[in-house]
Amino acid sequence: MTTLTQQQWIYRRQPVGQITAEHYELVEQQLSTTLGDGEALIEARWFSVDPYMRIGQSSKPTYDTEPHPLNTVQQGAVVAQVLASNAPGFAVGDWVQSYTGWQTHARVHASGLKRIDPELAPVTTALGVLGMPGRTAWFGLTESGKPHAGEVVVVSGAAGAVGSLVVQFAKRHGARVLGIAGGAAKCDWLRNVLDADWAIDYKAYADADTLGAEIKRLTGGVDVYFDNVGGMVTDAIIPLINRRARIVICGQISQYSGGLETPELGPRLLHHMLYQRATIQGMLARDYLHRMDEMIHIVAPWVKAGEIVFEETVIDGFAQLPAALNSLFTGEHRGKLLVKA
Amino acid sequence: MTTLTQQQWIYRRQPVGQITAEHYELVEQQLSTTLGDGEALIEARWFSVDPYMRIGQSSKPTYDTEPHPLNTVQQGAVVAQVLASNAPGFAVGDWVQSYTGWQTHARVHASGLKRIDPELAPVTTALGVLGMPGRTAWFGLTESGKPHAGEVVVVSGAAGAVGSLVVQFAKRHGARVLGIAGGAAKCDWLRNVLDADWAIDYKAYADADTLGAEIKRLTGGVDVYFDNVGGMVTDAIIPLINRRARIVICGQISQYSGGLETPELGPRLLHHMLYQRATIQGMLARDYLHRMDEMIHIVAPWVKAGEIVFEETVIDGFAQLPAALNSLFTGEHRGKLLVKA
Repeated sequence: MTTLTQQQWIYRRQPVGQITAEHYELVEQQLSTTLGDGEALIEARWFSVDPYMRIGQSSKPTYDTEPHPLNTVQQGAVVAQVLASNAPGFAVGDWVQSYTGWQTHARVHASGLKRIDPELAPVTTALGVLGMPGRTAWFGLTESGKPHAGEVVVVSGAAGAVGSLVVQFAKRHGARVLGIAGGAAKCDWLRNVLDADWAIDYKAYADADTLGAEIKRLTGGVDVYFDNVGGMVTDAIIPLINRRARIVICGQISQYSGGLETPELGPRLLHHMLYQRATIQGMLARDYLHRMDEMIHIVAPWVKAGEIVFEETVIDGFAQLPAALNSLFTGEHRGKLLVKA
Repeated sequence: MTTLTQQQWIYRRQPVGQITAEHYELVEQQLSTTLGDGEALIEARWFSVDPYMRIGQSSKPTYDTEPHPLNTVQQGAVVAQVLASNAPGFAVGDWVQSYTGWQTHARVHASGLKRIDPELAPVTTALGVLGMPGRTAWFGLTESGKPHAGEVVVVSGAAGAVGSLVVQFAKRHGARVLGIAGGAAKCDWLRNVLDADWAIDYKAYADADTLGAEIKRLTGGVDVYFDNVGGMVTDAIIPLINRRARIVICGQISQYSGGLETPELGPRLLHHMLYQRATIQGMLARDYLHRMDEMIHIVAPWVKAGEIVFEETVIDGFAQLPAALNSLFTGEHRGKLLVKA
């Protein structure tokens, strides 16, 4: 039997706060390269690192009833190339997207492979603007946020993979867009590169009141709030919503390192929903998987024409995966965070 | 000039916590009975006392930009009879609904009068099931709650004017209904008279976790939460929502005696919206004023047929109005709270 050496990151322990080396183990083993009918052998070139992975490590039920199983390969999307194929339609060297997680190689049935056209856009966009983050941004904004031209759209986590796309999609809807991010450099990028009307570094504010006063001064009030972050930023914005505002809960990353188990305390603000007849709606990318073609139909031409900024922050080396995941919550990345094999 | 002696409750001071005698002043004065073109003189028989009145006393903007003006008659709806008329279509003795507030008599232009048909139902229903509370319950449930047969609908403040109607309307939609109220007597009434499937006395629980455990045990999970109360009850329910649950924010009365100025702290729970792709929607009765006929068309026949319980708690005497308002937040009333002139 022919084999190759495969490396895997095994999820060993549920983190309480931040993710460290003790929660994962790097193992090496031999993978048989003998292919069954319809199977291909793939080698991962790019690994996706996404905030949802931390949700799956919560000890309480989330969008899945059960947490990510211990002692298995960390799940996640990859961009890979075909090393050998027994699957009709897949040839050696083809680029594919798969969900084989944090392992260098895998044998996968064709039903678990999605072809990537490298002529359309860089292959990594399958993990970003033309993949799950793009779908999240597009449908979260259009189906839940429903922005109109001239309205004020505020995006938290605006320099992240999803947020940076929401900023741009909202601009294309004719909205006036405020991006909120951590640090002056990200804010400069939001204004100068993504063309946000305004950007605010939330770390420069001591509390929700002073942050809110600045948001109010810039925008006058908020029609759509696309929330990736939660916590103090959300506390600042809810009292500023306009009549019939739409709040999209896409993520709450400020709460992922413990707050999903034992909720933080924050101000009770639901009376503002009543005052403004506003809506809070939670959205999950998987609900729009079957409508991926709608998003691609609209967004792929913009990508091809170079009209969308799809920044990537690349961390080099399979060994860096757990640290890369943790850096989503602490780090200075811009756009989509990827690990290169 | 002919006059009559008119009594008024003047709103003098903004309350911080509970409403007491110092916030209102009872004044007596002479009202000219000389009628202009199209005017009628009315005498109030029934005064409405509603939680929204306390919202209007907040020092911060609410659904109105400005709070209830000081040194004016407390606004509110009344059921009155015509004492004299210079208005075509209104005759002495006619029953009308008006918005003349806490005063015994008023001269009102016909445009400010709405005829009540005393044959259709008791005239007080114009302040309850066939008035603003009925409209709130009906459109809040049908337009925001959108219950389906077989779903679980939970109602907080379930023994109140709005809540007691929501319980019944939800049952008519085929839902399984849990009413939450304060005290065993209200719960017995919810089960035995309103036919709620379950009732819980939230005062019997020390915290949101133990209350939530009981709600979970009874219902299994919540599809629609019609919230009149907020606070601990809402904290208990949000972690129990089912996929695509709809939370209707109709009131937050647990927060009205201070929490609208300085929000209480409570657990951050917005991640559950994401997990369950759920919706929180604020609703206000005034948004459905123009659709009143839709509600009346459906609900009035039920009222006429005796199929709807529209309990009233009556406090006797104009002098009791401020105390009656305060008792909304502390008292033991069931159904619609009215003050009889």
